Amino acid sequence: MVDIDLHSAHRRLGATNPLIQCITNTVVQQFSANVLLAVGAAPAMLDHEADAAQFTQISSGLLVNFGTATSHQFLAADAAIEAATTHSKPWVLDPVSIGAADYRTTRIRRAAAARPTAIRGNASEIAALAGFGLGGRGVDSTDEVDAVLPAAAHLAATTGAIVAVSGPVDAIVAHIDGADQVVRIHGGHALMPLVIGTGCSLGAVTAAYLASTAEATASARLSAVVAAHAHFAVAGARAGQSAKGPGSYSLEFLDALHALTADELAQARLETGTVEGAAS
Amino acid sequence: MVDIDLHSAHRRLGATNPLIQCITNTVVQQFSANVLLAVGAAPAMLDHEADAAQFTQISSGLLVNFGTATSHQFLAADAAIEAATTHSKPWVLDPVSIGAADYRTTRIRRAAAARPTAIRGNASEIAALAGFGLGGRGVDSTDEVDAVLPAAAHLAATTGAIVAVSGPVDAIVAHIDGADQVVRIHGGHALMPLVIGTGCSLGAVTAAYLASTAEATASARLSAVVAAHAHFAVAGARAGQSAKGPGSYSLEFLDALHALTADELAQARLETGTVEGAAS
Amino acid sequence: MVDIDLHSAHRRLGATNPLIQCITNTVVQQFSANVLLAVGAAPAMLDHEADAAQFTQISSGLLVNFGTATSHQFLAADAAIEAATTHSKPWVLDPVSIGAADYRTTRIRRAAAARPTAIRGNASEIAALAGFGLGGRGVDSTDEVDAVLPAAAHLAATTGAIVAVSGPVDAIVAHIDGADQVVRIHGGHALMPLVIGTGCSLGAVTAAYLASTAEATASARLSAVVAAHAHFAVAGARAGQSAKGPGSYSLEFLDALHALTADELAQARLETGTVEGAAS
Repeated sequence: MVDIDLHSAHRRLGATNPLIQCITNTVVQQFSANVLLAVGAAPAMLDHEADAAQFTQISSGLLVNFGTATSHQFLAADAAIEAATTHSKPWVLDPVSIGAADYRTTRIRRAAAARPTAIRGNASEIAALAGFGLGGRGVDSTDEVDAVLPAAAHLAATTGAIVAVSGPVDAIVAHIDGADQVVRIHGGHALMPLVIGTGCSLGAVTAAYLASTAEATASARLSAVVAAHAHFAVAGARAGQSAKGPGSYSLEFLDALHALTADELAQARLETGTVEGAAS
Repeated sequence: MVDIDLHSAHRRLGATNPLIQCITNTVVQQFSANVLLAVGAAPAMLDHEADAAQFTQISSGLLVNFGTATSHQFLAADAAIEAATTHSKPWVLDPVSIGAADYRTTRIRRAAAARPTAIRGNASEIAALAGFGLGGRGVDSTDEVDAVLPAAAHLAATTGAIVAVSGPVDAIVAHIDGADQVVRIHGGHALMPLVIGTGCSLGAVTAAYLASTAEATASARLSAVVAAHAHFAVAGARAGQSAKGPGSYSLEFLDALHALTADELAQARLETGTVEGAAS
Repeated sequence: MVDIDLHSAHRRLGATNPLIQCITNTVVQQFSANVLLAVGAAPAMLDHEADAAQFTQISSGLLVNFGTATSHQFLAADAAIEAATTHSKPWVLDPVSIGAADYRTTRIRRAAAARPTAIRGNASEIAALAGFGLGGRGVDSTDEVDAVLPAAAHLAATTGAIVAVSGPVDAIVAHIDGADQVVRIHGGHALMPLVIGTGCSLGAVTAAYLASTAEATASARLSAVVAAHAHFAVAGARAGQSAKGPGSYSLEFLDALHALTADELAQARLETGTVEGAAS
């Protein structure tokens, strides 16, 4: 049985203030930086191929997201991923835009093969990365979370990553001791997908929680990924109480992320189990 | 006489949820994505020269805006425009920054010659693109909308595009059956030009309405472009009722874009006529 | 004794509506553009190496910030800085990310050697640029403002720039007539560092105030830099009165920047003196 200690995860994040290098798409850089600041982490978006890897060494964690990648940014990510691996920094892959066109799909698959600590995407993206689907269209998701859990479990087994599937109910899948553990997180709000960057910034926050874990075990990492999603789920639900539309939701969400206490995070509605029908 | 059915345009946009590829400047990518989501479309900002054109084929429409273009983005736009033309996808050119410097001016003129479905800019930009003026300084507009209508009509006749001139009262010009039709749209608010991206994102929404038209006729396209501008005009006026400044206006505007119903859109104040003194 | 006329500075900014070219990082482009619009300036973010320098000639001032610089943007900045120097346009260097990695540090030092009109950074960045420290980690600042004043004075003496150090109390240092003048500005709010771009956009506003100075003397420039910081300090304090967190702070800040009158700016709490223990 998985033991998730959200309270400790929140306290450690606040105590460590991890520096998260985001090699991410330009659409969501501002929002992701604000989200990282709101939860108590420090953002740095530098992605020059000449020095990205050097910066990875002083960072606490890394996010890679190729949504608007240039050839330069692909090179920077290659170097940063290698540095993260060499120096044992946790790193998160967001496969956004997989399946949208061949070139980027190839690059995203190559990154996934480099053994990320965690992979976070919506149902369509996870299915596509696992080889079970065609990918989404931009930030959309056309598959349902539960339907792709076998794909997520397969991906977790083959890459060694914790695999997080975002949706109305998020599901985090980890292959631990030969079993496909799944933790579902309830919360969020219908307006959340109407604010660009709520998915992409969750990848950054996942890196931040991973960077502040005490141990590098699979179950500590599962806890960290769950904590990141729970932080979004609880704050996202609260933001929905006062928002009048996607514009006000965006700011209420940042306020709620920042105001959330460890005690409130610990109230997140989690469900644990194992993935049924997993092929792995 | 032009027949504009705003009610149907709004319903079709909601029903089709078009995927709009935006090859646009990095300053307004986030805001444009949020605006597209708010009106019921799906944004995708990928602009890599290796795969932009492949993505155009699965997109419903395309926006091209060279405000912060790199050489890579210029190549991506060339390829995407060609794909849009080949596959009959509507595409919108925003000539922002024309006249600011020679290199970009040349590239913007080349894009205009590729027969965009619509061109949207402020008065100075439209005049400059038509060869009647010097262009604006960034997002400013130093010419008045009415003064540039002959230039807009000339541009519509030579490029085949619907030409939209943004200002306190927007004017949409179309060369249909040998006549220079103009539709003026009243609304908006004085704070709107103080929020970066309200112009650029209107180009994206214009692409979204064009992508959801039932027919590819000139008058269906005129209706679509008018509907996009009316959506902004009505929501923009409403946002002004509660905003205290440009910061709060920005979020009120997103909320208002999202809340707007087809019935409310149909209340937009339009004026139809023909361009007087057009040289074409 | 330095004479700072905030009232006149504010009126001149409104009267001249300066066009500020920002070669800046993509994380803060949108926020910086909105901030420039809110204070009465006009933003333009074009940074293509083929035409950036031509645009500098029609701009009123220039900001250079290498936070997410690509090789292309470095080339554009080189050219723009040369054009600003040749055509006597004021320009501001923000040394954000200095010390984070070698390549960018070298480029930032090269820009500083090109004699910027002003340099604005946090305490760690100013210390690093002066050769007295290691730099910050992204937007963080780990040194205190007062502790780095000797470094700031040294930097002012060696580069000829007005040097602005941002912190809980900002300090502006100028080497005038052989003395190291310092002006401290009180204000702001604890939420300000939790909104990405509040530092970077202050560099842009500094360029805007510099572009609207009546004279090119050192003391006129000192006044302009102080006015920019006072504008942020007063508006920042006011925004804090109604904000509930970093999300609402961001919009309240834009509203407050825009609402601020010359009379209110003149109420800013300034302290003037000289730097003690300066090595220069």
